[in-house]
Amino acid sequence: MKKVLNRPENFVDEMMDGIIAAYGDRVQLLNGDKRVLLSKYPAPEGKVGIVTAGGSGHLPVFLGYVGDGLLDGCAVGNVFASPSAQKMADMIKACDRGRGVLCLYGNYGGDNMNFDMACETVEMEDDIQTKTVRVKDDVASAPPENKDKRRGVAGMVYAFKVAGAAAKEGRDLAGVAAAAQKALDHTRTMGVAMSPCIVPEVGKPTFSIGENEIEIGMGIHGEPGIEVREMMTADAIADLLLDKVFADMPVEKGGKVSVMVNGLGATPKEELLIVYRRIAQVLSEKGITPMMPHVGEFATSMEMAGLSVTVMHLDEELEALMRAPATSPFYTNENI
Amino acid sequence: MKKVLNRPENFVDEMMDGIIAAYGDRVQLLNGDKRVLLSKYPAPEGKVGIVTAGGSGHLPVFLGYVGDGLLDGCAVGNVFASPSAQKMADMIKACDRGRGVLCLYGNYGGDNMNFDMACETVEMEDDIQTKTVRVKDDVASAPPENKDKRRGVAGMVYAFKVAGAAAKEGRDLAGVAAAAQKALDHTRTMGVAMSPCIVPEVGKPTFSIGENEIEIGMGIHGEPGIEVREMMTADAIADLLLDKVFADMPVEKGGKVSVMVNGLGATPKEELLIVYRRIAQVLSEKGITPMMPHVGEFATSMEMAGLSVTVMHLDEELEALMRAPATSPFYTNENI
Repeated sequence: MKKVLNRPENFVDEMMDGIIAAYGDRVQLLNGDKRVLLSKYPAPEGKVGIVTAGGSGHLPVFLGYVGDGLLDGCAVGNVFASPSAQKMADMIKACDRGRGVLCLYGNYGGDNMNFDMACETVEMEDDIQTKTVRVKDDVASAPPENKDKRRGVAGMVYAFKVAGAAAKEGRDLAGVAAAAQKALDHTRTMGVAMSPCIVPEVGKPTFSIGENEIEIGMGIHGEPGIEVREMMTADAIADLLLDKVFADMPVEKGGKVSVMVNGLGATPKEELLIVYRRIAQVLSEKGITPMMPHVGEFATSMEMAGLSVTVMHLDEELEALMRAPATSPFYTNENI
Repeated sequence: MKKVLNRPENFVDEMMDGIIAAYGDRVQLLNGDKRVLLSKYPAPEGKVGIVTAGGSGHLPVFLGYVGDGLLDGCAVGNVFASPSAQKMADMIKACDRGRGVLCLYGNYGGDNMNFDMACETVEMEDDIQTKTVRVKDDVASAPPENKDKRRGVAGMVYAFKVAGAAAKEGRDLAGVAAAAQKALDHTRTMGVAMSPCIVPEVGKPTFSIGENEIEIGMGIHGEPGIEVREMMTADAIADLLLDKVFADMPVEKGGKVSVMVNGLGATPKEELLIVYRRIAQVLSEKGITPMMPHVGEFATSMEMAGLSVTVMHLDEELEALMRAPATSPFYTNENI
C-alpha cells in the first residue's frame, strides 16, 4: 500500500491536523474535537445554520465546503464511515444562531440514522429547530420509481452552494431548506469508475475492476453500479453519462445548466476537459446553454480513477444563488 | 490503458477544445491556433507581457496560469514535449504591448532552445524586447555546484505569481524579470514519485517503480531521481523533502515561508494535508512562520502518484507580490 500516511488509524485525525495547520485562520475545531469542523468566517447575525456530515476520504467533500456562503459546520467520520449522532448534535448546537439549522447531507443509512437522532436530541434538549434535506442526486443508484433510495454524490456541492447563498441572504430555515431542495430537484449526477481506492485501515483495494473494464454508475465508496462495460472513448463516456442524466431530468431547448465534470481522484484534469468539451458540443446541439463550469475535483474517493457528470438545471433563482460569492479553503466561485 | 480520451493523437487538441468550451470567456486561442493560449482578462495599458511554454500533461501547469495577475500567454506542446519556436514567437508577438515580454519557463533542453530561437526572431523581425528567466527549482535534479542544470517543477507557480503581480503593478521588463528571478532565488522544490503515468501516444507506463518503493527526486516526466527507497511514512517523507530543501536554501529562525504541497496527480488531498501537518510542525520547531499555504494540485504529471514540497522564503517584497490578487480558470489566491 503506497498511501502517504503514518498509522492508518490516525489518518483522519492527522488530516484534520493538516487542515487546521493550513487553514486555521478560517476554520476551527469545536473545542479541539477533531471530528467537528466549524467555520470562522464572519456570518450575518441570525443567519440560519447549515451543517453536513459524512465519512472521510472524499475531499473536498464534505468538510471542504465549510466556509463563507457555504456550510457552517461539518461532522467528520472515519474513512467512508458516518460520524456519531453525538458529534452531529454538538455541531448543530454550535451552528445555531437562534434561527435554526439545516442538516444537508448525502442519503446514506448511517448518516440518516445519526442525523435523525442528533436532530431529535437538540430539538428536545436545546429547543433548536432543525430541518433535513437529503442529497439523492446519483441517478445510477436507484430507478426513477425509487428516487428516495438514491445516494448523494457530487451534486451535493451545488446544494451546499445554493443553500449557503440563501442563508447568507437572510432567508429563514424553511426558505433555506426549500432552496436546497429546489437545487437538488434540479440536479442529477452519473458517474463511472475505472479503478478502486484503498481504505487506509483495510490496506488493499476494496473491490476490483477488470483491466479493460469500467463500471457505469459505481458509487463513491465502490457500491456496485448498473453495468460493467469495456473501456470506452471519452466521447462515448460523456454521451452515456449525459444521456442517463437527461433521461432522468429532461432539459428543454433554451434551458441553462451548470455542468460539473468531477474527477474521482486519479483522473487527470486534461481528461476531464476532454469530457467537458464533448458535453459542451452535445449541449450546443440541444440548444442548451452551459454556464459556471465546474471542472476539477469536487467530490473524490481518494485515489479512485473515474469521473462523474453533474447537471444542474438553472432557473433565474438558482442562477443568482449560484453566482453569489462563496469561499472556503477548498472552494471558491471567484474563478468559476 | 484506461485513459479518458478519444484518439491519443488528438489528446492535446481536444483538451484545448475543453478549455475554450469551459473558459472561453477568459482565455482564447491565438487566431484559432490550439497551441497558443492567450489571456482575455483586461490588462493595464503598456503592461509588460509574461509568457511561458511547455509540454502538456501537467495541468494546471503551464497554461492554467494564463490569467489576471499571472501570465499573458502560453505555448502548448504535445504531452511532455516542447512546443515549436514558431508558436513561441507568435505568442510573444501577441503578448507585447510595447514594453517587452518576459519568457519565464522551466529549464528543459527543448524549451530552452526553442525559446532562444523565438526571442531572437521577434527581436530581429519585430523589434520586441525580451528577457528570459528559467525556472530551476528542483533540488534533486543537480547538486548545488551545478544549479544551472536543475529542472523547473512546481516552484514555477510561485514565479508566475510574483512576476505577474510585478507586471500588473507597472514595473518595466527588467523589473519584472528581476522579481521573477528573486522569487526563484528564494524557492526550492523536492519531490517523490510513487507510480508512473501514461503518455497517451505511448499507451503504457513510461517507467516503473517497485511495489513497495518510492523514488526520491524523480522528475515530473519520470526523469530518474537521486535515490530509490522503501515506502516511508508521511512524516518521514515530509522530513526528508524539507531537509533537502533547507540544506540547499537555509531559512533562519524568524523567517516567513509559503509552502506548497503539490500532488502529482493520483495522491489524495487527505494525504497532502497529512504531509502539510508535519511540515507545519517542523517549521514551528524551527521558529519559521508559514503563510499562504498551497496544498493541492498545482503542477502534475497526469495520473502519477506522489507529491512535491516547494518552499518560498518570503521577504516583504515577495510577500506583497504573493498577496496581490491573481486569478485564472485554474488558480486563484482569493482563498489562499
